[in-house]
Amino acid sequence: MNEFDFIDSLRQRANSRKHSARVLTGIGDDASIIAQSADRDLIVTTDLLVEGVDFHRGATPARLLGHKALAVSLSDIAAMGARPFWSFLSIGMPRAEWTTNFKDDFFEGYFALADRFGVTLSGGDVSETKQGIVIDSIVLGEVKSGAAVKRSDARPGDQIYVTGNLGGAAAGLKLIENGARVKQESGVRSQESERGSSPTVREGVITETLAQASGLTDEPQSRSDEDSIQSLLLCQLQPSPRVGWGIVLGEEALATAMIDISDGLSSDLNHLCRESNAGALIDSSSIPLDDDVKRLCGRRALDALALALHGGEDFELLFTVAPENVSRLPKRVDGVAISHIGEITDAARTIRIRERDRIWDLQAQGFSHFKD
Amino acid sequence: MNEFDFIDSLRQRANSRKHSARVLTGIGDDASIIAQSADRDLIVTTDLLVEGVDFHRGATPARLLGHKALAVSLSDIAAMGARPFWSFLSIGMPRAEWTTNFKDDFFEGYFALADRFGVTLSGGDVSETKQGIVIDSIVLGEVKSGAAVKRSDARPGDQIYVTGNLGGAAAGLKLIENGARVKQESGVRSQESERGSSPTVREGVITETLAQASGLTDEPQSRSDEDSIQSLLLCQLQPSPRVGWGIVLGEEALATAMIDISDGLSSDLNHLCRESNAGALIDSSSIPLDDDVKRLCGRRALDALALALHGGEDFELLFTVAPENVSRLPKRVDGVAISHIGEITDAARTIRIRERDRIWDLQAQGFSHFKD
Repeated sequence: MNEFDFIDSLRQRANSRKHSARVLTGIGDDASIIAQSADRDLIVTTDLLVEGVDFHRGATPARLLGHKALAVSLSDIAAMGARPFWSFLSIGMPRAEWTTNFKDDFFEGYFALADRFGVTLSGGDVSETKQGIVIDSIVLGEVKSGAAVKRSDARPGDQIYVTGNLGGAAAGLKLIENGARVKQESGVRSQESERGSSPTVREGVITETLAQASGLTDEPQSRSDEDSIQSLLLCQLQPSPRVGWGIVLGEEALATAMIDISDGLSSDLNHLCRESNAGALIDSSSIPLDDDVKRLCGRRALDALALALHGGEDFELLFTVAPENVSRLPKRVDGVAISHIGEITDAARTIRIRERDRIWDLQAQGFSHFKD
Repeated sequence: MNEFDFIDSLRQRANSRKHSARVLTGIGDDASIIAQSADRDLIVTTDLLVEGVDFHRGATPARLLGHKALAVSLSDIAAMGARPFWSFLSIGMPRAEWTTNFKDDFFEGYFALADRFGVTLSGGDVSETKQGIVIDSIVLGEVKSGAAVKRSDARPGDQIYVTGNLGGAAAGLKLIENGARVKQESGVRSQESERGSSPTVREGVITETLAQASGLTDEPQSRSDEDSIQSLLLCQLQPSPRVGWGIVLGEEALATAMIDISDGLSSDLNHLCRESNAGALIDSSSIPLDDDVKRLCGRRALDALALALHGGEDFELLFTVAPENVSRLPKRVDGVAISHIGEITDAARTIRIRERDRIWDLQAQGFSHFKD
């Protein structure tokens, strides 16, 4: 199958699932044609994912990679308070990969997530690489004209909220780096097992990994630890974009500013405050820690907090709400709760954190590809 | 400079050149915000360019790579009969490249072309790679609602045209593969020379290259051959997207079907005919050959024709016109002429070529990353 045949097969799959009548021409021409709507603004995001940097192939089943490639862009659309509609995907892979089932598994995960949110794959590109897989994920969405939620409109006195729980994705990454792998039984086809090796690490390695990841060496090993490990791996490999929350916060004009937590809470809160020319005071005890992170980190609660503050890729939404709108916030959207973690201050670019009776400056320690 | 600082510098450059008031938020948020227009359709294209596959770094000065990355996507927008407005760029590079002047030179070439056509860089992404540069170029444009020119609406009897001349880009690629390099004097800063080696190959090598590329061994070497080589290298490295022709053909509803020649005339005409469920008969003597290709190929005219028929990346527009509209076609747009090369037939998917008194089937021999 050459790339034209493959693109044709994608076109058929995309067309059979076409949710949007406004895609006048999708895959298969020089470009795609989408009917515009005068009373709505277009929202566009792109995310580049590179093997060995943004994901580790041996630890990432192709189906989950397809899921994550779309999820990270859906999260950006949600962070604008927008509703996603159309996606584009550019993918490059080595020649040898072309004949494996990688691309089929990848698109299985991709389409499953696209279908869940009514997103239409509307175009993209395919190329060869000399080494490694590279993916550029593009999603287009819409908001009512003028209703997009930017990073720059937080005002002193606005209350700071975050969806879901934090730290799970960073813990999952640490586990992966220490050799843990998703289990085949979790409904995921593992590449490792397809290559003939064990789909999960041996129990002893898991214990060691846990100990390394959490600084915990004296906790009893149990079946629930294994479950926690699997759950944390999926936090990293199969993040849930908060599409529903994004739509509610945008359509109901509830959020004054919003960002998704991709680089880490400390770093992303810093971005938001910088763009808003404001500061923030957050309360460490109110930061929602992932249950599995808490359990595995055990008594060393500080490690869990550090993962929640500085770990990236949770893809939760961090947003600010004017005091008069706090009472209008729903408790849950799609089963996901929010936590009130602090308040915007007028101390420009200064992020402080209260821990018991101490207040200290919170340094942004999030992820950056290229350091100063 | 970390990536956030670099993205800030791009944001300032993009904002200082902002042509489109409809970019409500460009670089610097989770996603970009563009005001929509009800009476226009949105056109979206993405092009993935991978080092070592789609371009060869040693032969491609960074400034020309920046130009080409945008040019290929502008060409796709033109091929829809649309006007380009907004661009997005995802770029990954090795850590070592981050501290060179690569990215500055790249964006110098990118912005120069964007400015020429009033295109606003509105977003994108930056990542690291383990090896090689990878670029995903995204351009958004617009046409009047329903006026986009697809590949699929050519009808038997429509006349086939192509802009400009063909074969130059493929000849340039052959020259590069044989060691020719763009000269510094042509206004291009050569990476080779920055690294201390010669910006152009030695004269003897050029002669040999020419001979290999063109099958020509007995032509006198002259200054004009050197000029031709430089011109052909720029056909490959600095293609001119036919933005003006695209807009005219779309806005005046002159073209029934259109495609840009990226894979090669034989291959792209095949795509167009396949999508239109039609065939074509073209005349070999009417195919516009690049002057420098003709000169360097000398008496072996067949080689020049082969380059024009099967060589890719000329980024000229191939389009069809209903007989009643032929008289409305302008002679030139932006100084670029068109050639009438044949006619659409009802012999579905059959491309034939007339050469003197012979007619034979033309096999598509264009570029494909992954063969069957």
